Amino acid sequence: MLVVMRDHASAEDIQHVVDLLQEAGAEAHLSRGEVKTIIGVIGDREVIYTLDFEGLPGVERVVRVLKPFKLVSRDFQREDTVITVGGSSIGGGAFAVIAGPCSIESEEQMMATAHAVKAAGATMLRGGAYKPRSSPYAFQGMGVEGLKLLRAAGDAVGLPVVTEVLDVRDAETVAGYADILQVGARNMQNFMMLDELGTMDRPVLLKRGLSATIEELLSAAEYVLKGGNRDVILCERGIRTFETYTRNTLDLGAVSALKWLTHLPVIADPSHASGRRDLVAPMSRASVAAGADGLMIEVHPEPERARCDGPQSLTPADFSALMADLGPRIALEDKWLGAGE
Amino acid sequence: MLVVMRDHASAEDIQHVVDLLQEAGAEAHLSRGEVKTIIGVIGDREVIYTLDFEGLPGVERVVRVLKPFKLVSRDFQREDTVITVGGSSIGGGAFAVIAGPCSIESEEQMMATAHAVKAAGATMLRGGAYKPRSSPYAFQGMGVEGLKLLRAAGDAVGLPVVTEVLDVRDAETVAGYADILQVGARNMQNFMMLDELGTMDRPVLLKRGLSATIEELLSAAEYVLKGGNRDVILCERGIRTFETYTRNTLDLGAVSALKWLTHLPVIADPSHASGRRDLVAPMSRASVAAGADGLMIEVHPEPERARCDGPQSLTPADFSALMADLGPRIALEDKWLGAGE
Amino acid sequence: MLVVMRDHASAEDIQHVVDLLQEAGAEAHLSRGEVKTIIGVIGDREVIYTLDFEGLPGVERVVRVLKPFKLVSRDFQREDTVITVGGSSIGGGAFAVIAGPCSIESEEQMMATAHAVKAAGATMLRGGAYKPRSSPYAFQGMGVEGLKLLRAAGDAVGLPVVTEVLDVRDAETVAGYADILQVGARNMQNFMMLDELGTMDRPVLLKRGLSATIEELLSAAEYVLKGGNRDVILCERGIRTFETYTRNTLDLGAVSALKWLTHLPVIADPSHASGRRDLVAPMSRASVAAGADGLMIEVHPEPERARCDGPQSLTPADFSALMADLGPRIALEDKWLGAGE
Amino acid sequence: MLVVMRDHASAEDIQHVVDLLQEAGAEAHLSRGEVKTIIGVIGDREVIYTLDFEGLPGVERVVRVLKPFKLVSRDFQREDTVITVGGSSIGGGAFAVIAGPCSIESEEQMMATAHAVKAAGATMLRGGAYKPRSSPYAFQGMGVEGLKLLRAAGDAVGLPVVTEVLDVRDAETVAGYADILQVGARNMQNFMMLDELGTMDRPVLLKRGLSATIEELLSAAEYVLKGGNRDVILCERGIRTFETYTRNTLDLGAVSALKWLTHLPVIADPSHASGRRDLVAPMSRASVAAGADGLMIEVHPEPERARCDGPQSLTPADFSALMADLGPRIALEDKWLGAGE
Repeated sequence: MLVVMRDHASAEDIQHVVDLLQEAGAEAHLSRGEVKTIIGVIGDREVIYTLDFEGLPGVERVVRVLKPFKLVSRDFQREDTVITVGGSSIGGGAFAVIAGPCSIESEEQMMATAHAVKAAGATMLRGGAYKPRSSPYAFQGMGVEGLKLLRAAGDAVGLPVVTEVLDVRDAETVAGYADILQVGARNMQNFMMLDELGTMDRPVLLKRGLSATIEELLSAAEYVLKGGNRDVILCERGIRTFETYTRNTLDLGAVSALKWLTHLPVIADPSHASGRRDLVAPMSRASVAAGADGLMIEVHPEPERARCDGPQSLTPADFSALMADLGPRIALEDKWLGAGE
Repeated sequence: MLVVMRDHASAEDIQHVVDLLQEAGAEAHLSRGEVKTIIGVIGDREVIYTLDFEGLPGVERVVRVLKPFKLVSRDFQREDTVITVGGSSIGGGAFAVIAGPCSIESEEQMMATAHAVKAAGATMLRGGAYKPRSSPYAFQGMGVEGLKLLRAAGDAVGLPVVTEVLDVRDAETVAGYADILQVGARNMQNFMMLDELGTMDRPVLLKRGLSATIEELLSAAEYVLKGGNRDVILCERGIRTFETYTRNTLDLGAVSALKWLTHLPVIADPSHASGRRDLVAPMSRASVAAGADGLMIEVHPEPERARCDGPQSLTPADFSALMADLGPRIALEDKWLGAGE
Repeated sequence: MLVVMRDHASAEDIQHVVDLLQEAGAEAHLSRGEVKTIIGVIGDREVIYTLDFEGLPGVERVVRVLKPFKLVSRDFQREDTVITVGGSSIGGGAFAVIAGPCSIESEEQMMATAHAVKAAGATMLRGGAYKPRSSPYAFQGMGVEGLKLLRAAGDAVGLPVVTEVLDVRDAETVAGYADILQVGARNMQNFMMLDELGTMDRPVLLKRGLSATIEELLSAAEYVLKGGNRDVILCERGIRTFETYTRNTLDLGAVSALKWLTHLPVIADPSHASGRRDLVAPMSRASVAAGADGLMIEVHPEPERARCDGPQSLTPADFSALMADLGPRIALEDKWLGAGE
Repeated sequence: MLVVMRDHASAEDIQHVVDLLQEAGAEAHLSRGEVKTIIGVIGDREVIYTLDFEGLPGVERVVRVLKPFKLVSRDFQREDTVITVGGSSIGGGAFAVIAGPCSIESEEQMMATAHAVKAAGATMLRGGAYKPRSSPYAFQGMGVEGLKLLRAAGDAVGLPVVTEVLDVRDAETVAGYADILQVGARNMQNFMMLDELGTMDRPVLLKRGLSATIEELLSAAEYVLKGGNRDVILCERGIRTFETYTRNTLDLGAVSALKWLTHLPVIADPSHASGRRDLVAPMSRASVAAGADGLMIEVHPEPERARCDGPQSLTPADFSALMADLGPRIALEDKWLGAGE
């Protein structure tokens, strides 16, 4: 941490900062320029994180040079984390395609979707049983009945299943049916849930919050790893900006940046990011080229009758065409579909 | 809902939309221009909210004209909601000043703060026992011990207390100590928590999410009211924008807009919005003038030793001066401090 | 400037930065921690601003501690700048109310508006002769004919006039009719125009760009002052965010922050910021309380027939009521209407 | 245009809107629901664009269904616009790579860069003679001397040259040296410059403003086409968001969306968008996959001594490696480098 003092800060103001640092158990290193004095702070990460000197007399700015995360960092672990569930892998070159409907609506819908996406080459099956909806008047999901349908469909076609934990009280229940536990964008900083998932033995798929920075996403993942669970998949799903043509703005620069910063697998969700069916295919292609380790794509047998996110859902035929198109692109990145046998 | 068809949409595409509407139990009213056909949709709110025709063949755009909330609307209830707890009121002219430290740290700190803010004219006491922190390495709060200290301090000076529920599993516990349950910005769309609080008999202080629209904030409040709990206080606490000089951007236009749109009390939190002590006073003044029904202000006996948000905390002396300054301003708005006698 | 090296950066990488600094004529001061080395850079502002070491081998981050502006800073000039034109003043306690229509449309419209706003207490008259419109199919303004109508209306009622320079080639022409030259939000970083206005003897009203930071606004003003023209008025007019209920988000924290950072007068434009008539009055009140030195308010005799910005324009009656309401609020800030007697 | 009336709007309020429409020469079509009345408006684009009924008594919302542009639309011209200058093409499958330094600094620098990028396969040469800089203390470019060096370097290696027009007064001068005239992000809504370039016979490379929507970018291009100049290249160069890890956020969804909406060529500028050398290659790959018709990439023989944008500039060796990598990717999109033989 650096404490940048105001121009010509007084000797007392400088000494005051130094005293507070010593009181907290950190070391101060002074660089005095003619106009500015800068105080370098050295000490334990935990100590440094409790110090906050912005606003002290004579202090102009505090610059944090230590990152707020450690375990997720590529400095901490150089080689890619590879996660394998139910015969499917992600990371280290294995590319995951997680496909399925926004919400689980019926056995017919889930079975039809599962068979279709499996046939097209998907490596995991998704579906929501608990749906976070802005309005309390919108469809809220089927709950446990949905979880059972999802599990049955995954088993029928031999794909591991991914679904969202919306309520920390349901985490154990969901873990009884799902192979990977998803944390939605609105819960990315639900730290109690992250703590809970950190103690469980299921991989976590952590979606970036609508206005979360890259550093905040990594810090959220750090909560899970700190709890002991090393298997986290990060998902860029669009951020909220001023642009309204697309539902959100897919930040593919974040995908590439995350691949430098962390050893965890990083995927993209072009369906939620764009909110428009016509952009799902080009954004899938761009995600692969940006270095993503996987994709999450909404597929529905009848998008126009979907109870959620119909406008961005692909038909099975669209999805099949997209998978054919993606094949050579994944190979061009020296990756391969992370499917079983 | 209006379905705007593309220029020269085909008769089949139009009929297809009409058929889907009828299948769902809604009525279609067609307006045919030379270039564009627009389909007006009439039906129950619940039905309309399950329909999503963006992306259908021939559809250019869907415009929702019904708001996603009802109970919170001023159309539904014209007169202001007034909430009274422990002798303090907010709404309908009663102005609340909720003051106290970011985090509860010790008995001395809480007692000193409680006496100071009471003496200066605060109408409620705040303090965090569970702290949402971006980094798992930062101070996370004292938990139940903190709740006890807060309750004791409030009782000692005769002020009702407000504190955050960070985990839905703690809601009952927190309600055992607090008069008002706060939902933090990061949990504004934690719908399971909103559902839970909707069944409880404690007023809820709901903070706007960092990237939540005004409409989403009202929809989140609708969850609580729909559950039966009519006492919700809305809090503007700054939104996330590109500007980095202030921690967030206080959106006072939202305060004024909310006063038109809803009967619920609306307060502002200039401490979190600006993240800078030097802006707390001017932003407090501006919030009063914008029509807020109250303020939430961080006060700490020794901001430079605070374990959280020190840079934006006022000293008791600063707070006392601010309260003196705000008095005539509150009166100018035909409001009064909502304190018991 | 501080150059923060990566953890355990090599001696060569550090030496390389030091060599480049010496080559450029700047001094390097090294602080070596166990993990991190930080290089403090000392030298002329002009030299420092040509250096950019982000991306060099071993460099993690560059932190600029010198601000990119000087003449506009309160460190450079402590006392408020006061600007007086045609008997009206702004700054140092003098509060300006600049009122008039978005666009000049006819002699009748301008004369009616001028008389009405003068009678209500406005201190300056505004009106646009050249209109920046997103679409080439929208009304683009009356040009020189409009300037003549504005000048005549101002003279008739004894108010100085403010109008926008849209094209640098028209600057001299506009200066022939106007007392204050406005630079619109879209031209805030039109540096050639700023350079030109810096050589002229007319005060400049500089609007903040839709996505300009506070620092960029001050740097834009620095261009004008550097050219020799010391009379610049800064105007917060709303920034672009994700919120769509209001046209833009009025950033009153920026108004307060600017009052700390610069000696130049700072005004707010609640009409453009909100885009809604019902928010103009509360946002005007809030701007006064936030410390603004003036307001810019759109007034039109018949808003529903306005060729531009009708929805946010006040009627003369609305404006008169607002001025009556603002009087005691301006006094409460120890300010006074900066009108001639 | 649709005028959505408030719930239970009065008959007078509805009639008032209808009267204003008739007065303006537009037609009103009423749809009366039980709760809401909606008024469809039919008339000339020019007429409709002067009407603005937001804020009228009883009006809840105005929805514009006509786009504010026409000539740039794919509805107006189905086939891709192809632009050819100096033997290089862009559009209709021809892919452009526009490479060179941020600023022109010397003859040696330009010649070295020109030879290097030509050898690597670039199809056009770029370089800035007039630099828009946030601070007046930063390097502002070499001016006409720079233009001459750029022209000479382009001629020496047989590449057309692209450079920015910063001041409308210099447009003719710049056109004397350059093949394509660039409009920078800060000038995207400098409508007077767009008007001027609309009358000239040089293609225009129009960069998206930092906070411009897709629709505003297309409307800006419409200004140029309306003036008679049909050759406009659109450039996505990153938008301003809350994320600070990258300088801006590259919006590749906009690239794909623009390809649906317009017949004009669309390119991406990964250098400015990311501001980081390590992201230029992955973002270039992603841009190709998203459907871009070209790339604009900063190359400097000695990035660490560049007077502008060094941190994001590639070395000639980096650029050469990137071009080799992009070759098969461009072919995969059924495109080819648009270079002369």
